[in-house]
Amino acid sequence: MRAAACLILLAVAALAQGQPPTDAPLLVGHWIATMEFNGTTSVARLDLVEASNPLTGSLDGVPLSGTIERKMLRFRAGSRSVTATVADGVIMGTMITEGDKGVRPFSSAFRAARIPDRRPGPPQTIEFTPTSFQRSYSPQATPVLRVWPGDTVHTTTIDAGGVDAQGIKRAAGGDPLTGPIYVETAMPGDTLAVHIVRLRLNRDWAGTNDHLVDSALTAGLARRMDGINKPVRWRLDLEKNVGTPEGATGNLANYVLPLRPMIGSIGVAAPPGDAAPMANDSGFYGGNMDFNLIREAATVYLTIQAPGALLYLGDVHAAQGDGELNGSGLETSADVTFTVDVIPGRRPSAPRVENEGQIMATGFGGSVDDALRMATSNMAGWLAQDYGLGPSEVAQVLGTAAQYQISEIADRNSGVVLKIDKPLLRGLAPAR
Amino acid sequence: MRAAACLILLAVAALAQGQPPTDAPLLVGHWIATMEFNGTTSVARLDLVEASNPLTGSLDGVPLSGTIERKMLRFRAGSRSVTATVADGVIMGTMITEGDKGVRPFSSAFRAARIPDRRPGPPQTIEFTPTSFQRSYSPQATPVLRVWPGDTVHTTTIDAGGVDAQGIKRAAGGDPLTGPIYVETAMPGDTLAVHIVRLRLNRDWAGTNDHLVDSALTAGLARRMDGINKPVRWRLDLEKNVGTPEGATGNLANYVLPLRPMIGSIGVAAPPGDAAPMANDSGFYGGNMDFNLIREAATVYLTIQAPGALLYLGDVHAAQGDGELNGSGLETSADVTFTVDVIPGRRPSAPRVENEGQIMATGFGGSVDDALRMATSNMAGWLAQDYGLGPSEVAQVLGTAAQYQISEIADRNSGVVLKIDKPLLRGLAPAR
Amino acid sequence: MRAAACLILLAVAALAQGQPPTDAPLLVGHWIATMEFNGTTSVARLDLVEASNPLTGSLDGVPLSGTIERKMLRFRAGSRSVTATVADGVIMGTMITEGDKGVRPFSSAFRAARIPDRRPGPPQTIEFTPTSFQRSYSPQATPVLRVWPGDTVHTTTIDAGGVDAQGIKRAAGGDPLTGPIYVETAMPGDTLAVHIVRLRLNRDWAGTNDHLVDSALTAGLARRMDGINKPVRWRLDLEKNVGTPEGATGNLANYVLPLRPMIGSIGVAAPPGDAAPMANDSGFYGGNMDFNLIREAATVYLTIQAPGALLYLGDVHAAQGDGELNGSGLETSADVTFTVDVIPGRRPSAPRVENEGQIMATGFGGSVDDALRMATSNMAGWLAQDYGLGPSEVAQVLGTAAQYQISEIADRNSGVVLKIDKPLLRGLAPAR
Amino acid sequence: MRAAACLILLAVAALAQGQPPTDAPLLVGHWIATMEFNGTTSVARLDLVEASNPLTGSLDGVPLSGTIERKMLRFRAGSRSVTATVADGVIMGTMITEGDKGVRPFSSAFRAARIPDRRPGPPQTIEFTPTSFQRSYSPQATPVLRVWPGDTVHTTTIDAGGVDAQGIKRAAGGDPLTGPIYVETAMPGDTLAVHIVRLRLNRDWAGTNDHLVDSALTAGLARRMDGINKPVRWRLDLEKNVGTPEGATGNLANYVLPLRPMIGSIGVAAPPGDAAPMANDSGFYGGNMDFNLIREAATVYLTIQAPGALLYLGDVHAAQGDGELNGSGLETSADVTFTVDVIPGRRPSAPRVENEGQIMATGFGGSVDDALRMATSNMAGWLAQDYGLGPSEVAQVLGTAAQYQISEIADRNSGVVLKIDKPLLRGLAPAR
Repeated sequence: MRAAACLILLAVAALAQGQPPTDAPLLVGHWIATMEFNGTTSVARLDLVEASNPLTGSLDGVPLSGTIERKMLRFRAGSRSVTATVADGVIMGTMITEGDKGVRPFSSAFRAARIPDRRPGPPQTIEFTPTSFQRSYSPQATPVLRVWPGDTVHTTTIDAGGVDAQGIKRAAGGDPLTGPIYVETAMPGDTLAVHIVRLRLNRDWAGTNDHLVDSALTAGLARRMDGINKPVRWRLDLEKNVGTPEGATGNLANYVLPLRPMIGSIGVAAPPGDAAPMANDSGFYGGNMDFNLIREAATVYLTIQAPGALLYLGDVHAAQGDGELNGSGLETSADVTFTVDVIPGRRPSAPRVENEGQIMATGFGGSVDDALRMATSNMAGWLAQDYGLGPSEVAQVLGTAAQYQISEIADRNSGVVLKIDKPLLRGLAPAR
Repeated sequence: MRAAACLILLAVAALAQGQPPTDAPLLVGHWIATMEFNGTTSVARLDLVEASNPLTGSLDGVPLSGTIERKMLRFRAGSRSVTATVADGVIMGTMITEGDKGVRPFSSAFRAARIPDRRPGPPQTIEFTPTSFQRSYSPQATPVLRVWPGDTVHTTTIDAGGVDAQGIKRAAGGDPLTGPIYVETAMPGDTLAVHIVRLRLNRDWAGTNDHLVDSALTAGLARRMDGINKPVRWRLDLEKNVGTPEGATGNLANYVLPLRPMIGSIGVAAPPGDAAPMANDSGFYGGNMDFNLIREAATVYLTIQAPGALLYLGDVHAAQGDGELNGSGLETSADVTFTVDVIPGRRPSAPRVENEGQIMATGFGGSVDDALRMATSNMAGWLAQDYGLGPSEVAQVLGTAAQYQISEIADRNSGVVLKIDKPLLRGLAPAR
Repeated sequence: MRAAACLILLAVAALAQGQPPTDAPLLVGHWIATMEFNGTTSVARLDLVEASNPLTGSLDGVPLSGTIERKMLRFRAGSRSVTATVADGVIMGTMITEGDKGVRPFSSAFRAARIPDRRPGPPQTIEFTPTSFQRSYSPQATPVLRVWPGDTVHTTTIDAGGVDAQGIKRAAGGDPLTGPIYVETAMPGDTLAVHIVRLRLNRDWAGTNDHLVDSALTAGLARRMDGINKPVRWRLDLEKNVGTPEGATGNLANYVLPLRPMIGSIGVAAPPGDAAPMANDSGFYGGNMDFNLIREAATVYLTIQAPGALLYLGDVHAAQGDGELNGSGLETSADVTFTVDVIPGRRPSAPRVENEGQIMATGFGGSVDDALRMATSNMAGWLAQDYGLGPSEVAQVLGTAAQYQISEIADRNSGVVLKIDKPLLRGLAPAR
Repeated sequence: MRAAACLILLAVAALAQGQPPTDAPLLVGHWIATMEFNGTTSVARLDLVEASNPLTGSLDGVPLSGTIERKMLRFRAGSRSVTATVADGVIMGTMITEGDKGVRPFSSAFRAARIPDRRPGPPQTIEFTPTSFQRSYSPQATPVLRVWPGDTVHTTTIDAGGVDAQGIKRAAGGDPLTGPIYVETAMPGDTLAVHIVRLRLNRDWAGTNDHLVDSALTAGLARRMDGINKPVRWRLDLEKNVGTPEGATGNLANYVLPLRPMIGSIGVAAPPGDAAPMANDSGFYGGNMDFNLIREAATVYLTIQAPGALLYLGDVHAAQGDGELNGSGLETSADVTFTVDVIPGRRPSAPRVENEGQIMATGFGGSVDDALRMATSNMAGWLAQDYGLGPSEVAQVLGTAAQYQISEIADRNSGVVLKIDKPLLRGLAPAR
C-alpha cells in the first residue's frame, strides 16, 4: 500500500514539473544521513517527498527545498546546505552549516543511506550465541546481528561480573551486554518494542553480597550497618524455582526466596554524537534499569536514538528486591528469547513497560524525587498519546489509579515506575 | 547555691536511711509526671522500684535515688531534684533543674499520677458519636473518650472539608479529626496498636479535583498541565463498591473505579512540650499519612508520645492513587470500628502497618529520598527487634524482599513505605 | 490626601443614589473581618468602597454588593452572605456560606473592625522589656506591644534554650521568642519591613556543641563522625568582637572566630485558621531561618498573614557557619533595636532581605533542591515586581548575577538564599 | 587446576630462595601495570620493594611475594598471579586471576612500565597550540603533550560550541576540551595540582541564551517562564573588563556586567576500565564543574585516576552566575597559562580548589542535597588530612566557618562548594 502511494506521488510529481530527472524515483523515501565533522558523527533523518525540481522533503524535521540535476543533488534545510551525488543507492557529498553571528560556516562530510521499507520474506527466529560483550550503550559499536521487525531472537546473557553459564569469565565486570543488535527500518524518533517471550536461568548459582547501598541509609542506619560487606553466594534450585543463601546459618538458615528472573539491563544505543553511556548507567535509552518487573511476558518500549536502534541486553537477576539495595540482585546468566518490533513515532521520554495486567512508565533521575517527576510525565504522555486524554482527564486518572514503585536506588540514576492497572483503562478508547 | 542544695539533700538522705515509711508500698509502680515551667508542660515517666530508704527507680530512664519520710518524697535524677508530697495517689511538689555552666537552677511545678496496670473488667465495645473535631495532633486537647487496651470503638469520621454523612459542615476544613481518645496505661515509649476491624463509607458521594500537585511535575509537565484545577465530584455506588466521576463526558464517561476505602489520617498526639502538628501534617506520630493500604483489616502501630496516647483519626478516602496526586483522594465520611492495644516498648521510628499479607514500615521526610531512608531504617529496626536479625541478615532480607511504594507526595512530608511479604519471613523465628 | 478622596467619593455616592443612609460615611474604608465557625477563626479583608445603596466593595478580594439600611448591613460576596449591624465602629453579625453541591449552607459569627489609616502623631521609639516568651508563630497569642509603622523598638532576646543575659532561664528551650508585636494598619497581603538598626550581644558566653547534623553527612562521614556530641561553651570577647571555644586544647587551642551577631528567628504570625508553626520551624512567614546575613543594618521583608502582622524574634547567634551544621549557632542573648514599616501589597512568597550591598531572596523547602527552587521563584518575583523585568530579562539577570548560598540544613526546612549585588541592578529602573 | 598452578609457583619459589639475580636492582621502584582482558584495560600500581628472593612489594596496595630468576619474574598478590619477563625496562607477561567459587581462573595480558622518579632538568614553560579537541575525559585518548611536574603550559581553549577566537568552528559542540596532557610521574591515587597563572579572554563576544534550566523552576515559575529560549549574544569589552547583552533594549539596555573569566571544565581522565565521562559531565575527576571561582590565581587539586593524570580543560566563561541558570555561562574562547604539580597521596573524594583567601571543597551529586553531603565529606577529609583535626574539631570548625555555595545545577550532577576563609585556619597547625 505504501509502495502504491509512492507511485502515485511520483506520477503526480513527474507531471507537475518541467524536467523530471530520470533517476528521481529512486530518491523518494526515507534515508538516514550521517554527517561527520572533525571526528564527530551525527545522524539525521532525511525524508524526500518529491524528487523533482523543486526537490522537497525534510532533514531532521526541518523542511528542505532544492534541486536535482542528473545525479547531482542540492538542497537547503534551515542553516544547512547539502551538495551531493547519488550513486548505488547512496547519497554522498558535503554539508555546509552556517554558524551563529561571528562564527564562520563549516563543512561536514555527508552520507545518506536508504532505509528499507519492509522485510524481505516472513519473520524469522534467529539463534544467536554471543562471542563478544559490550560495556557501554555505544552508537558506534559494530552490530553482532541484524534482524527485521517481527523477528524473534534466542540468545544468552552473562552475569554482571562477566561470567557465563559454565563459570567462564567472558568479559570484564560492570554489566557486560549481549549485542548490539541492529533492527532494520528502526529510525531515531521511532519506538522499539521488545517482547520478552521467554526468560530462563541457565545455571544453579548467583552472586550478591550483604551490604546496603548508601542511598538507602539514614546517618543512624549507616552507623548500625557499619562493618558489613561480604560476598554472598546463592544456590538456585531451578526446578523448584527458589533460591537460598549458600551456607546461611542463624536466622537465615531457612530463608527461601521464590525466583523471579528479570532483565537488569536492556537498552538502545545513545544518540550518535553523544558519548556512550556506561553499561551500568540508565536513562531515556533504557540501560541498567534494574526494574524487577522486566520479566518473561513483559514488553519494553524504548525510544530509538540511532539508526537500527542497536539493542543491548544483559545483567539478568534471578530475583531482586525493589531498589537493588545490596547494589546487586542475585546476579546470574540466562537464556532469553524475545521478538522485536518498530512502532513509528511515539517517542516516550523514558522506557515504558507493559505486561498482562499493567502499563508502566519509568522515570530516571539523580534523586528519587526527580525520577518520580520523570515517571509521572512519561505516563501523562502515554495517557495522552495512546488513550487520547486531555490534561484534566490525565490528572483524574493519575489521581485515582497511580501506583508508584521505586525500582532502583543503587545506581547513579534512581528509578521510579508509575503503574496503572489495565482494567481501569478499559473504558477509555485507545487512540493507537 | 547548687552546692548548698546538694548538702541538704544528702543530709536528709543520711537521716532517712533505714526507716521504711508506712505508706511506701503504695508508691512502687509506674507514674506519669508532668512538669510545668513558665507555661510549658513536659512529661516524664517515673518508675519507682523501691519505695523505702533509699528510694530507687528512674525518671525518664535516668536512675533516681532519694528518700521518703511520711508523705514527703525527695529524690534526684541526673540534674533534676524533686521535693514532693504524696496524697490521694498523686505526687505533688517542686522540681529544681540545674542548668549548664552559667545558667542558674530553675524550678518547675511537679505532679505525678499513677498509671493503672490493668483494666477493671473485660474488654468493652464502645459506641462513640463525635460532636467536636480537632485540627491538630495536640497533646493538650481534652480527650473525648477514655478506653482500655483491648476495647473496641465504633465511631464515625467527617470528610477533609469538615462535612459529615448528612452533608452538614461540622468543622472547618483541613482534615478535621475524630478524637482524641485516651487509652489507659499508654505511656510514652510504648506502642499503640490500632486494628481496623471495619471501615465502611456512609454516604454516596466524594469530592476531589482535577489538578496535579506541583511535586509530581517536571517543568514540562507543569506547562502542559497549566490551567486545570476544578472540583470534581464523584458518585459512590456503595452496593457495587465502585465510584464514577459525576457528569464525566469524553474519555472518562466510562471510567469506573473500584472503591478501596482507606483512613487518610491516623495518629497519636505529639510529645507534650512540642507545638501540636497540624491535622494535615505527618511524621513519627503518624498523622495525615494518606497511605492507601491503611484499610479494613490492617493494624497500625504508632509510637506513643504522650500519656494516654491520645488517638486521632479522620480523612477517609473512598479510593486514592499512590501519592495523592490531586492533593486529595475521594474525600468522604465514614463509619469505622477499631480495637486498641498497648505493646510495651518497641518504639518504631515511624508508624508500622501490617495486614494479612505484608509487614509495612513507613517513612516520612521533606523529600522522597529522605522518606525512603526513613522507611528503610524503620524496617531495618523492625527486622532486628521482632525477627532478631543482625546487620548482615537485615541487608540480605532487604536486598531480596524489599518492596518500595511511594505513598504520599502531596503534603509537606513525602511518604515512602517499605513492604515485605509475610511468607518470606516465615522461616525466621520471630523474637516477639 | 486619602481623606479628601474619600469625601469626594462620598459626595458622589450621595448624589447618585436615592437614600443615602445617615451613617454611611463611617463605613467607607478598610476593615478586618474575623469569622468564627465551630471554634475555628478565619480572617478576611473587607474593603467598603461605597456605603450607600447598593453597597460596593470586596471581601478578601471577591467583589461584594449589598444594601445598608440604618445600622443594618446586608451583602453578598461569592458564596458568602453577611447580615450585620454597625455600632461603635464595629460590624457584627452572621455570615452564611453556601457549600458545594450536597453540603448544606453553614453559619459563622462575623465581626469586622476598622483598620486605622494613619498613625496618631510622630514616630516613637519604644523601650520594651519582655517578661514572657512565645514558642510558636501563633496568630492567636496576645500582643505584648502595639506599635505603628515608622516606630522603633528597643528590646532584648533570650537564647535558644530560654536563658537570658543574666543566666536566668526564662522559658523552656526551643527558640523562645520575644513578641508578638502588633503593628497597626498591617493587613494580610501587605509586607512588613523590619529594619535592624542595631544588634549587639549582651553576655560573654554562648553555647553550642560538636556534632554534625545528619543532613550534612554521607554514609561514610556518618561513620567517621560517630561518637561525638558534647556541649561546647564559647567565650565571647565583646570588646575585641571575637569568640573562642572555652577550654579548647589540641588543634583548636588557637581557634579565634570573629563574631558576626545574627538573628536566627524572625517572623510574623501564621495565617489565622492554620495551626501555629513551632518556634523552630521556618517558611513563608519567616521564622527560624538561621540565615547568617540577618545582621545589623539588614532589612527583612515578611508577607503579613494576620492582622497586625504579629512580629516575633529571637534565637540570636553570636556567629554561625552556613547550614548551622552543629544544629545550633553560638547561641546567646542579645540587645536589639529595629524599626517597622508596612508596605502595601507585594506579598513575597518567602522573606526577602536587603543590606547595603545585596538584595537576597530566601526559599525554604523539605530539600535543598526545593529550597533553591523557592528562592529562585522568590527572586524572579522580586525582579518582576520591583524592577519591572519581563521573563526573558529575569532569566538573563539570574543567569549572570545569581549567587546561591545554602543558609540552613539543620531544621525541618532547608533554606537557600539567592543574592544579587545591588550595583548590577543600578542600570535597571526600579518600578517601586 | 588452580591447585596445580599454586604448586608450580611454590616449587619455583622454593628453588629460587637465596640467589639474588643479577639485574634485581633495576626492578626496585614504582611501576604502572596495565592489564588487558578481553578488550578491557585496567591499571594498577606495582611497587617493588625488594627485588631478590623473595621478591616483595605490592600490586595496587595488595602485598605481593614471589621470585625472580634471570629475567623471569613470578609473583602473587591476593588472587592474582603474574609470570613475566623483564626487558628494556618493561615487565611483560601474563596474569592469572582466580575467580569466586564456581568461576574459573582467567588470564590477562600484563605489562608494566617504570614510572620516572624525577624530571630530567629544570622546569619548562611550554607553548602549546591545540589542533584537536576531545569530547570526553577518556583514559584512552592519546596525549597531545607530555609535561613534568613543575612545568608551565601556555595554551588556548575554544568555546562550548567548538568555536575558537577567530570564529572558526574547530569541534562539535558539547564543551570540547584542550588535552589530554600527560604529566610524567603522575599515578592513580596521587593528586594533581593545577595552578592557574593567567586566564584571559581572547575575543570580544560570548554566547548564551535567555532560558532558565528546569532544575531552578518551581511549577509556578515554569509556567511564568514559558515561551522564552532564544540565543543571546554578549559583547565583551576586554579593556574595561565588562560585558553587555548585544542589542538589549528595555530594562537591560543599561545592564553592564563585570567580567570574571573562569574555567568551566577542568579534569583528569576517568579510571581506565571505566567508560569515559562525557565532556559535559562532572564528578570525582573534576570535569564540567562550572564553578565560577576557578579563576586566575586559583589552584585546583584533582585526584589522579590514570597514569599520567591526562589533564583536560576548556569551556571558559567570561562570567557566570551561580548554578549556570541559563544552561550556559557567557561562553567564549580563552588564553590560559597554568603550572602542574603532583602531590603524592591525599586522594580527595572530589576536586579541591584554593585561592588567596579560601580553601574550597567541591561535591557533586544527582541532587543539591547529595552534592552538599559530598562537599562536606570532602572538606572534613581536607581538615583531617592537612590540618590534623579530629572528628570533634572538624565539627566545630565546620559549624562556625562553613560557607556553602551552590555552584552548578544545570548539568546532570549538581555541584556544591564548601568554602572556609583561610585566616580562620591560621591558628591550626597544618599537617602537610
